[in-house]
Amino acid sequence: MHETRCPCHFAAADVGSGGGGPKSGGRVAADLLRDLAAASRILADQGVVDAFGHVSLRHPDAPDRFLISRSMAPALVGPDDLMEVALDGTPCDGDTRPAFLERFIHGEIYRARPDVVSVVHSHSPTVIPFGLTDVPMQAMFHNAAFLAEGVPVFDIAEKFGATDMLVSDSRKGEALAKLMGKAPVVLMRGHGSVAAGPNLQTAVFRAVYTEVNARIQHQTVALGGPIAALSEKEGALADAVNLKAADRAWELWAQRVGR
Amino acid sequence: MHETRCPCHFAAADVGSGGGGPKSGGRVAADLLRDLAAASRILADQGVVDAFGHVSLRHPDAPDRFLISRSMAPALVGPDDLMEVALDGTPCDGDTRPAFLERFIHGEIYRARPDVVSVVHSHSPTVIPFGLTDVPMQAMFHNAAFLAEGVPVFDIAEKFGATDMLVSDSRKGEALAKLMGKAPVVLMRGHGSVAAGPNLQTAVFRAVYTEVNARIQHQTVALGGPIAALSEKEGALADAVNLKAADRAWELWAQRVGR
Amino acid sequence: MHETRCPCHFAAADVGSGGGGPKSGGRVAADLLRDLAAASRILADQGVVDAFGHVSLRHPDAPDRFLISRSMAPALVGPDDLMEVALDGTPCDGDTRPAFLERFIHGEIYRARPDVVSVVHSHSPTVIPFGLTDVPMQAMFHNAAFLAEGVPVFDIAEKFGATDMLVSDSRKGEALAKLMGKAPVVLMRGHGSVAAGPNLQTAVFRAVYTEVNARIQHQTVALGGPIAALSEKEGALADAVNLKAADRAWELWAQRVGR
Amino acid sequence: MHETRCPCHFAAADVGSGGGGPKSGGRVAADLLRDLAAASRILADQGVVDAFGHVSLRHPDAPDRFLISRSMAPALVGPDDLMEVALDGTPCDGDTRPAFLERFIHGEIYRARPDVVSVVHSHSPTVIPFGLTDVPMQAMFHNAAFLAEGVPVFDIAEKFGATDMLVSDSRKGEALAKLMGKAPVVLMRGHGSVAAGPNLQTAVFRAVYTEVNARIQHQTVALGGPIAALSEKEGALADAVNLKAADRAWELWAQRVGR
Repeated sequence: MHETRCPCHFAAADVGSGGGGPKSGGRVAADLLRDLAAASRILADQGVVDAFGHVSLRHPDAPDRFLISRSMAPALVGPDDLMEVALDGTPCDGDTRPAFLERFIHGEIYRARPDVVSVVHSHSPTVIPFGLTDVPMQAMFHNAAFLAEGVPVFDIAEKFGATDMLVSDSRKGEALAKLMGKAPVVLMRGHGSVAAGPNLQTAVFRAVYTEVNARIQHQTVALGGPIAALSEKEGALADAVNLKAADRAWELWAQRVGR
Repeated sequence: MHETRCPCHFAAADVGSGGGGPKSGGRVAADLLRDLAAASRILADQGVVDAFGHVSLRHPDAPDRFLISRSMAPALVGPDDLMEVALDGTPCDGDTRPAFLERFIHGEIYRARPDVVSVVHSHSPTVIPFGLTDVPMQAMFHNAAFLAEGVPVFDIAEKFGATDMLVSDSRKGEALAKLMGKAPVVLMRGHGSVAAGPNLQTAVFRAVYTEVNARIQHQTVALGGPIAALSEKEGALADAVNLKAADRAWELWAQRVGR
Repeated sequence: MHETRCPCHFAAADVGSGGGGPKSGGRVAADLLRDLAAASRILADQGVVDAFGHVSLRHPDAPDRFLISRSMAPALVGPDDLMEVALDGTPCDGDTRPAFLERFIHGEIYRARPDVVSVVHSHSPTVIPFGLTDVPMQAMFHNAAFLAEGVPVFDIAEKFGATDMLVSDSRKGEALAKLMGKAPVVLMRGHGSVAAGPNLQTAVFRAVYTEVNARIQHQTVALGGPIAALSEKEGALADAVNLKAADRAWELWAQRVGR
Repeated sequence: MHETRCPCHFAAADVGSGGGGPKSGGRVAADLLRDLAAASRILADQGVVDAFGHVSLRHPDAPDRFLISRSMAPALVGPDDLMEVALDGTPCDGDTRPAFLERFIHGEIYRARPDVVSVVHSHSPTVIPFGLTDVPMQAMFHNAAFLAEGVPVFDIAEKFGATDMLVSDSRKGEALAKLMGKAPVVLMRGHGSVAAGPNLQTAVFRAVYTEVNARIQHQTVALGGPIAALSEKEGALADAVNLKAADRAWELWAQRVGR
């Protein structure tokens, strides 16, 4: 595996003169950076993100840092667009490129959840309705088994009143992470959703199949009557298989976007 | 920024011998014309317009003139297809190319609304149902926050009886603009909708996200029960962010259509 | 306009020795044949037909003949694939290539309707539900104004009992044409639909906008409550405009399929 | 027709030293292998499978063997990816490449159904809802006539309790095949569906039109009221035509994926 300079990594000597702020957690393997950039493009190609949305990866050597693209359309992200950010949302090593307003979603979930290595935030349209009504998302099939343990809905207005709906600071991020608890997915009322996973491939897999599951559930609800969704136990058993199967999906999706 | 001859601009000397009609408001920067032509193609690429629909831009130096393509499919528009038109719908400088029958939508909104710099008219299919029933459009998520202040529905039959449904003269355009009031979007019963904005990028952004919002609202309504849509205050706060975010979407969309 | 040999045209001398059957109505302009082949590919590109479905054109010089492709997927049709067929479904000049089983739809509509010059038969999926329930199709917007006069539903079982659902002989075609009456569109229970027009461009336009209208109507019905569809008078007024506007759509669609 | 070495075929002498397991049923024509690989890509192109799902073909000379790709995304399958597998799920001639976990679906259907020559397993999203509710799938149009005889739903929990939802051994496959009976299609609760046919083209045709039919039925149910679906007799008559028409669809679909 080749190593490369993380775009936001400066030698220690540079940092002192670089305007301060948190230091980088160190160089990251080029393969990992290429994968993270590809994940952005995959999410766009799969219809999970449009011009907005972002995916991040916890720094492999520094658990209090994460990698995420600068503020731009996910379909256009390459490795050079990645920034390193501290959990409080401050870019490392004085990186002055515009950062996503909602990087606090990522930072606070990484802080609250040591098990999480990758986070996807999206506004995928089919999922949003489940954050606006009382109908809970359920697991409609085994590929979305991770939803069977329940999908909480975060309403930013409960704690913060009328806002611009954005999780744009650490306090809001903390409230979101608290409401999310140990769930793999959390919905955000009038906004979108977040999927988390123990690695990049799984977080992307969950973001994609949350969208697919939402599509299936809309049609199932419309048929009327009770829904024989996956039970929590079935979900746990099936998700163990998904964790191994995510790589097969990744291979296909990555090939489509030219990883 | 380069300047170029507006396709419908003639020197003053030419106009006298050019068959009369209103004079051009003067040359327009080539970049702006390229952006306006790209906006047509973006709206087609994003599924907001099909073979029909149009986007216009108020003349930057002459508020009583606007630019719009000749009558043609929006996906095929280039800068050379743009015409300059007076608010009463008369092409400037005797331009004799076929103009859109419904250019009066644009002219009368520009006349009634000094804050509007760009107007999109479309028949995007997902939006049309909200003009045919009593279910009002609401803002389902922050990117469609501009809908939170309410979306009026213009029924041409109320004032004009049975027609061909087209806003094909200034009187009909005036009635539409009056019903629209200060709203950013107005629906037209049995026809389509209009989105307006303080600049080209915002008008296009609103046209696209009106369609996305409609798709989300259909699915939300189908789930049943009350909908926790954005409140008017949340809408106002979130739209302020959108006005800055529209550029990011524009960059992505423009790249797709080869701007 | 260039003239070319119609693929199924033989000189009179040849016919005598060609195995009998009806004679060709004469050579057809190459432009017209290219347009008819393009219409097949347009309908595939627009999602109106898949591997099945067909479009035909009445012979310009022989009203008792029509042109239609041999039995094949519409997306692949070129001018050389066109056949000439008599109204009773017999290929002209002994053309032995496999013909569509349902060419009788076309023949009997041409026989019953002197105003019809082109016919499209498709199974476009969004339209089929309106042939299976009591909900009548209505005109949701001006581009589908031709539906405002009412859309009859042909149930082949009423007259013919349990069949393979196909209009595979003249008697069934006659029954379909009779039920269709003067309507531009007729639905076929458990099968598909037919759109007819006074020229090729209009028949294609109607087939496409029947599908778009169906999509809109599904979503409108799902919103609940009464639907303010186009009245019959509005429909008649708006359709007069469509007849002129169909060319603009055709230009766009034809460019997409390389006409 | 050219002959080629089946990728999993070894000469008899090799088998003895090849680690044991069942022997290959013999060489298979290269054309057939190319068709089977194309079928995988067709199902992906038609939206029936995504990163998951598989299609198999009974060995033409050994009814107790079948051909199926190694475990990979169907969109990427070529002839070299095909394996030969015995009905009990054991790869032939010691092929050690990773096999699909659910190859037992195929094996047990081939064992129970001598009439079946090809099997498709997919998770096509539109079909899944009919396995989760009490609404039975019905034939909405003639191309899906094979559904008119009834579509059973297999609930793995009935016999096996809480599982990972996968048919991952012969006992589960046997239970699925038993529940399927003589039907061409069986749904699997919380999972997907299986389509079977007397040849490869028909199995693929049925998988595609099961999905199309599901889309139509969702919209038909949503219109409300009784549904005039195909009767069982109409279904039988219409399916006889489909069996001949499947080739026309195959030609189109195969051309799209570069067969």
